[in-house]
Amino acid sequence: MPVITFQPSGKTIEAAPGSNLLESARKAGIDIDAPCGGKGTCGKCLVRIASGNVDSSSLGVLTAEELADGFVLACKTKITGSPLTVEIPELIARKGGKFTSAEEDARLVRQELFPGHWQYDPLAVKWMVKVAAPEMGDGLSDLDRLTRAIQQFWGPKKIIYPLPVLRTVADAIRRDDGNVTVTLVRESEQYHVIGIESGNRTQDHYGIAVDIGTTTVAVQLVYLPEARAVGTLTDYNEQIACGLDVISRINYAAKPGHLNELREKVLRTINRLIERLIKMYGVAVEDICNAVISGNTTMNHLLLGLNPEYIRLEPYTPTIMQSPYLTAEEVGIKINPQSWVYLSPNVGSYVGGDITAGILCTELVAGSSGMSLFIDIGTNGEIVIGNSEFMMTCACSAGPAFEGGGIKYGMRAALGAIEGVQIDPATGAAGYQTIGGVKPKGICGSGMISLIANLLLTGWIDPAGKLNRSKPCDVIKVDGRFAAYVIVPASEGENGVEITISEVDFENIIRTKAAIYSACALILKQLDMTFGDLTNIYIAGGFGRFLDLEMAIAIGLLPDVERGKFKYIGNSSLTGSHMVLVSQEFRERQLEAASRMTYIDLSSDPQYMNQYTSALFLPHTDIDLFPSVRDKMSKQ
Amino acid sequence: MPVITFQPSGKTIEAAPGSNLLESARKAGIDIDAPCGGKGTCGKCLVRIASGNVDSSSLGVLTAEELADGFVLACKTKITGSPLTVEIPELIARKGGKFTSAEEDARLVRQELFPGHWQYDPLAVKWMVKVAAPEMGDGLSDLDRLTRAIQQFWGPKKIIYPLPVLRTVADAIRRDDGNVTVTLVRESEQYHVIGIESGNRTQDHYGIAVDIGTTTVAVQLVYLPEARAVGTLTDYNEQIACGLDVISRINYAAKPGHLNELREKVLRTINRLIERLIKMYGVAVEDICNAVISGNTTMNHLLLGLNPEYIRLEPYTPTIMQSPYLTAEEVGIKINPQSWVYLSPNVGSYVGGDITAGILCTELVAGSSGMSLFIDIGTNGEIVIGNSEFMMTCACSAGPAFEGGGIKYGMRAALGAIEGVQIDPATGAAGYQTIGGVKPKGICGSGMISLIANLLLTGWIDPAGKLNRSKPCDVIKVDGRFAAYVIVPASEGENGVEITISEVDFENIIRTKAAIYSACALILKQLDMTFGDLTNIYIAGGFGRFLDLEMAIAIGLLPDVERGKFKYIGNSSLTGSHMVLVSQEFRERQLEAASRMTYIDLSSDPQYMNQYTSALFLPHTDIDLFPSVRDKMSKQ
Repeated sequence: MPVITFQPSGKTIEAAPGSNLLESARKAGIDIDAPCGGKGTCGKCLVRIASGNVDSSSLGVLTAEELADGFVLACKTKITGSPLTVEIPELIARKGGKFTSAEEDARLVRQELFPGHWQYDPLAVKWMVKVAAPEMGDGLSDLDRLTRAIQQFWGPKKIIYPLPVLRTVADAIRRDDGNVTVTLVRESEQYHVIGIESGNRTQDHYGIAVDIGTTTVAVQLVYLPEARAVGTLTDYNEQIACGLDVISRINYAAKPGHLNELREKVLRTINRLIERLIKMYGVAVEDICNAVISGNTTMNHLLLGLNPEYIRLEPYTPTIMQSPYLTAEEVGIKINPQSWVYLSPNVGSYVGGDITAGILCTELVAGSSGMSLFIDIGTNGEIVIGNSEFMMTCACSAGPAFEGGGIKYGMRAALGAIEGVQIDPATGAAGYQTIGGVKPKGICGSGMISLIANLLLTGWIDPAGKLNRSKPCDVIKVDGRFAAYVIVPASEGENGVEITISEVDFENIIRTKAAIYSACALILKQLDMTFGDLTNIYIAGGFGRFLDLEMAIAIGLLPDVERGKFKYIGNSSLTGSHMVLVSQEFRERQLEAASRMTYIDLSSDPQYMNQYTSALFLPHTDIDLFPSVRDKMSKQ
Repeated sequence: MPVITFQPSGKTIEAAPGSNLLESARKAGIDIDAPCGGKGTCGKCLVRIASGNVDSSSLGVLTAEELADGFVLACKTKITGSPLTVEIPELIARKGGKFTSAEEDARLVRQELFPGHWQYDPLAVKWMVKVAAPEMGDGLSDLDRLTRAIQQFWGPKKIIYPLPVLRTVADAIRRDDGNVTVTLVRESEQYHVIGIESGNRTQDHYGIAVDIGTTTVAVQLVYLPEARAVGTLTDYNEQIACGLDVISRINYAAKPGHLNELREKVLRTINRLIERLIKMYGVAVEDICNAVISGNTTMNHLLLGLNPEYIRLEPYTPTIMQSPYLTAEEVGIKINPQSWVYLSPNVGSYVGGDITAGILCTELVAGSSGMSLFIDIGTNGEIVIGNSEFMMTCACSAGPAFEGGGIKYGMRAALGAIEGVQIDPATGAAGYQTIGGVKPKGICGSGMISLIANLLLTGWIDPAGKLNRSKPCDVIKVDGRFAAYVIVPASEGENGVEITISEVDFENIIRTKAAIYSACALILKQLDMTFGDLTNIYIAGGFGRFLDLEMAIAIGLLPDVERGKFKYIGNSSLTGSHMVLVSQEFRERQLEAASRMTYIDLSSDPQYMNQYTSALFLPHTDIDLFPSVRDKMSKQ
């Protein structure tokens, strides 16, 4: 019988040819979600056939594109004679076929970004205390004695006991000789008890760090006694179906019922990831007793069901900057219902908790006197500049080009995306690499940057983004006023599709890079500084993972300064959330940082348009700002 | 056509003979609940035909007893030619046929018990504030501006916004030019916002005061702007089905699922009464924004779902004395979900919130230097003695005799209960009055007291509770060692039942009165005082409403002292709850009083048995303690 290997667990089963894949997997104890009971209607039993042949009739629920990527519904798939490798859904984000392997996830939080010295001091502590036995005539209730025991350890602040916890007190303190494990959150004015358990449960202590991106949600399970990331999973934010950027989500939310729909969608995404992590690592849901969530202002308003409309309307006022004390039950996060859900604070309508979390990984917060610049590159670009004494922040609407939006063959950094391109100087023809090494389906942001930079350095486009029509070649096609460049000829493309990029696409990409560069340049100018004066330039964002620094400088996205100043910090919003989860110190730093950040509205600055227009060139109208690029171009 | 008058509204309708009572009432806009749609199965359209004849086929759902009392199902009742008076169900407690008229309810809270001077200052305030409009670059969220406006008025304490309130903020502060009505509770360290509404809603402001008795639950709707009781309804505590006294409820709660059952039962009782009040007075449920609930320690533990087991077990330790901050949603009370549910504090396992609420009506709290005694007579008797300087409290297990328990023809003070008895000195025959003036069904506590006192004063029983067998009469029947007294001969009793009371019953009643008297006597003795030294003797409890002072003294339940010292204060637990609802001052007094009450465990006092045994006589072994009774007895 053929052997079937399931990834990532590596479990193998043998199954007879002709047998159903879902049934065979289940018989072998491999868990594949199929709420519709195998009727092929729910689409949840999605798996990817990584190798081998199957007989599947999944069309209808799956798109042709998904089928071509090897995705099938397990319930509609028959095993043939061939050995199979089947990837099960935990690690596959379905839409768009994005593939995040366990390795990639591990890269999402980089512990080396923590500052050198920090105090382990998680928001939610769990420790054992002995409660005195009741005595006749002492006039004390169980709660009085428990409160006394807690206050003896943590000081005489007010203690809040939620009713479900109160219900467990009488029995818990009478078992194990009065030894109880108390899970407690220390807020400034008072303590909140999350749980009371008899005996020593201090080692069963987890938290979750969450980054809610407009596009991607990342959830990390953290083992709190060791402040260690256990596992991280990412998935697309289900809200994508309601609009690709924050403005379209805000507009979508305006119709009756839509705000709640958006809230439920992001909760489903988060809770699904939590559920998978819990299963993968065998953690009890009640033992997850704290969540720290960071997202942009619109994302945290939608998570809480707060009307986001006024974020978009002048004078751009969100309902909250700092969120009140909220429990997992109130918010809808499926961990211990009494857990504190802490949201990283917002600074303004377009600079949110993802930024106040993100800067925790930088010297902006760690208190260096040198000047640092933090750039979070996404559909909205956010910029922070400052040092231990002051911080200024602004946002710019970069547009979705680097995530594939508005570019004919653009796509997100997902399976089949061209992520790197080399150009033959003589023929202009492209060599390329795709994510996952499969046939190319489109081009993602890092591919675009690499492509444009190399076309520029080899003289196939000019600084205005116009293709060189003067040299005879097979890769430039002129159609009326505009020309297009063929990256992948039809013979190599998936399903025979020719992948091209047009001069209109180039304009879009140039506008995006110009928005980010000019925002950085303007904020520096307002401070009477140049890029050269900076000590550190931090680049954050999912995007940053694939970014080739030289290429990004070549197109003028990043400034042409000493390479050692640049630091890639990946998903700093997630890393910052992790940091807050494990130390009160980071939370205090974050609140302090948020309070001293000055939000600047760039769009109202009359100089912005000048700066922006000057940046609408490759790399810039003032080529002297990019000496290394100038030198390379002159060697053509 | 016959005229039909509905009570208590006084509305009249005309309806053709033969027409259905439920349909006729509904056509005339009179609201009678009938969820089964008139099929006769739900039993909810219960009404009482106070006068006139109908053609009804309600047997099956109603008992023969209920039918005899004039109860019918409106849906199964046809109007005949006669004029009718129909009492609608809001004011009829069905089981047991207890009847509480609107007048009786009004007596439940006696505003004259409020102290002369008090500050109107309700726990939940509702007032209008103007929130500044947002301004570009002010760096303030909506919540920041709202908080600023609230703090400008109430001072800079921390403000807690529940998530459902937060969701309404952005829109509410943008209507009506920023004028919003804030409903807010001021707890010691922080403020809790209950609601934010645009415009002026300050006049839509209600609270409820609740007394949870072991037997009866009373709910009062209070219009907070005027601190005025709008209406009061009472019903049996549904928990009765699980045991008649607190000990049997605690035992019942020990089995799996039973604690929750008890919790749901009392919530159903409370919520049903709230729902009726809301309907009767046209109040919106969201406008009820505070509840103050007082009940004995077991009752408040059961309400919150706290394990009551340790109340009963040495060293008798409840889970809570003071309850934490709880919302209506958490507790399950159906008013505005964000409302504060304040529970009057307990003092010990057997002295609870009903007592700390009750003493608010007395000079114990009002700060007089004269010594006062407070007696709450119920299945458990609670006693407080003290003045402005100290307070001592104890409880005694009086037993359920005065509520009808353990007495062959005993019953609660309900429709058909004998509540007063006169004895013909010559024949020994009884004259009597029943509640509601209907045929006698049994005898309630006030009837028992009146009966025994008059039998004693006319020489038909001796001080030991033995019937006088020496005089020939028709009313004493001897059966072996014991004799019984015939109160109502079979010819007069309902359904031909002879109502008697035996010497065993007398013993029970004497034990009950002895428990209360001796507890009072002992606590005085410990203070080296006598009853004569007291300035005030407060008698509380549903029982107190019907108590004839002279008769209660004659049997030795109450001491034979100057009559002007006695004050009937009715349901002081409900009155006290009302007082806390309308003034922070009363809440502070209550907390202060609870903290300075010393709980004494009488059962462990070696003198208690002596005191108790001495009181097992009518009125007492030491007749000199009861000079007025001695004089009356000597005149026989």
